[in-house]
Amino acid sequence: MKKIIESVPNFSEGIREEIIKKIVDPIREISDVKVLNLSSDKDHNRSVLTLAGDEDGLKKAVDILFAGAIEHIDLTKHKGEHPRMGAVDVLPFIPIRGITMEECVAFSREIGEHIASTFHIPVYLYEKSATVPERENLANIRKGQFEGFFEKIRSPEWKPDYGPAEVHKTAGAVAVGSREFLVAYNINLATDNLEIASKIAKSIRHSSGGLRFVKAMGVMLEERRIAQVSMNLTDFRKTPIFRVFEMVKNEAARYGVNVIGSEIVGLIPNDALLDVAEYYLRIENFKYSTVLENRLAEVE
Amino acid sequence: MKKIIESVPNFSEGIREEIIKKIVDPIREISDVKVLNLSSDKDHNRSVLTLAGDEDGLKKAVDILFAGAIEHIDLTKHKGEHPRMGAVDVLPFIPIRGITMEECVAFSREIGEHIASTFHIPVYLYEKSATVPERENLANIRKGQFEGFFEKIRSPEWKPDYGPAEVHKTAGAVAVGSREFLVAYNINLATDNLEIASKIAKSIRHSSGGLRFVKAMGVMLEERRIAQVSMNLTDFRKTPIFRVFEMVKNEAARYGVNVIGSEIVGLIPNDALLDVAEYYLRIENFKYSTVLENRLAEVE
Repeated sequence: MKKIIESVPNFSEGIREEIIKKIVDPIREISDVKVLNLSSDKDHNRSVLTLAGDEDGLKKAVDILFAGAIEHIDLTKHKGEHPRMGAVDVLPFIPIRGITMEECVAFSREIGEHIASTFHIPVYLYEKSATVPERENLANIRKGQFEGFFEKIRSPEWKPDYGPAEVHKTAGAVAVGSREFLVAYNINLATDNLEIASKIAKSIRHSSGGLRFVKAMGVMLEERRIAQVSMNLTDFRKTPIFRVFEMVKNEAARYGVNVIGSEIVGLIPNDALLDVAEYYLRIENFKYSTVLENRLAEVE
Repeated sequence: MKKIIESVPNFSEGIREEIIKKIVDPIREISDVKVLNLSSDKDHNRSVLTLAGDEDGLKKAVDILFAGAIEHIDLTKHKGEHPRMGAVDVLPFIPIRGITMEECVAFSREIGEHIASTFHIPVYLYEKSATVPERENLANIRKGQFEGFFEKIRSPEWKPDYGPAEVHKTAGAVAVGSREFLVAYNINLATDNLEIASKIAKSIRHSSGGLRFVKAMGVMLEERRIAQVSMNLTDFRKTPIFRVFEMVKNEAARYGVNVIGSEIVGLIPNDALLDVAEYYLRIENFKYSTVLENRLAEVE
């Protein structure tokens, strides 16, 4: 597979295992799409599916996913802690290899139009695919959730990008868009003082004056009795991991606290870690094609 | 290409471009082998070819390479600074992906036997493929060079592993073996004092008491007027790059000298840089399969 797009659809079923199986299993049969992960949360009553494939493969996967979700999920009866507006709630696409962000945006719009016309579901383009700034942030779009959307959709401001200006009676609406890879990254501190982790989180996150593509909060790891700075890095190319790590380490030092270690939750793109190696080794004129496997992919 | 073996044949022609082309071009036509690099040195009168492929592809490449080298190279007329004993002088195989060192050793022996019987050239197994400790080191085997081998081969100690106990009259003998990837890695110092680089090299290299898989020497970069610690890392899994970098940095600090930067010469395996990222970020429970592209290769 030379071209790789990742897609991480979230759908609104996290409890009934037989239904989750019915929705996901047919996707496993598609030869040019790989199911990298499936994670279901009972409290959220929601599942997160991680797929990788090329355009053709993902088109097939999206068709199967929506057909299954519409058949088996009825949002009028859905309860869960996580906010949601659709049976398939959000459908992000992430360019990984051999495709630019611009191309991935074009692809997501094509998919969005296809979903709207095939399944009669209103589609909102979000993140890099958004057509207006108010729709870049998913939380803005989803505000009011499924129940509130029957009202919200009537406002001209919330006319869908594609499809009927009417909420699907059981499957709601969906947000579709292209975005950067989201790295879930946590740094563990040699302290059981949650306040220190929270202060560091505040200093480093974008919303309170920190780094542009960092979301952060302090959490307590009860079992290990240590505090953690728990983060989402929403654009590792512009706010690289090494800068985040060094800044957390420096802020922690201010409180006389050391960094014990860090953890990557889920998957991370190879480039993100190559950037780390390049930084610490101070490699001059580093190119990704210096890496044997990358060089090989170029000539393959 | 799921399985990747690298092969870096060195052959004894670095001057006559039309001959180099005649030897290498047919290899470019093999579909399951990729020519990653070709580097010819006029002073050495020697070329280094970097290939990647699976077993079948490399078998084809080896056949073409030996046929071409035997046809076009006559060692009785060959002069160059670099020591050599064969038209194809050395044929190393390096396991990169989907193959263990043990399997690669078995493959190199199979290839060695094939070369001996097909081209009537004495074959010496070296490095990990060596059958006796005295043949692990290529320099030991090559001692005496082409000219001396007619005598050397008669000693029972230097009976070839495969093929005739007689040197090929124009193509000599060849060393074949499996080895770890060799990383050529240099660290640049903020000083024009070569002596400091040489002292650091001495402290870090295996031969004078340093790290097990490091060869090092001090060199002067005349244009930039800086001294450099120039190294070969012969097993990056056992002597990782970050440890080398940190040790050089510490030794330099002893002389009040900073590290300006470092450089990778040629290619480097992805894992070698992932190990660097893991170290500096202090990642807990890191697995190579945490990397999206690796995870994808697993399920592909």
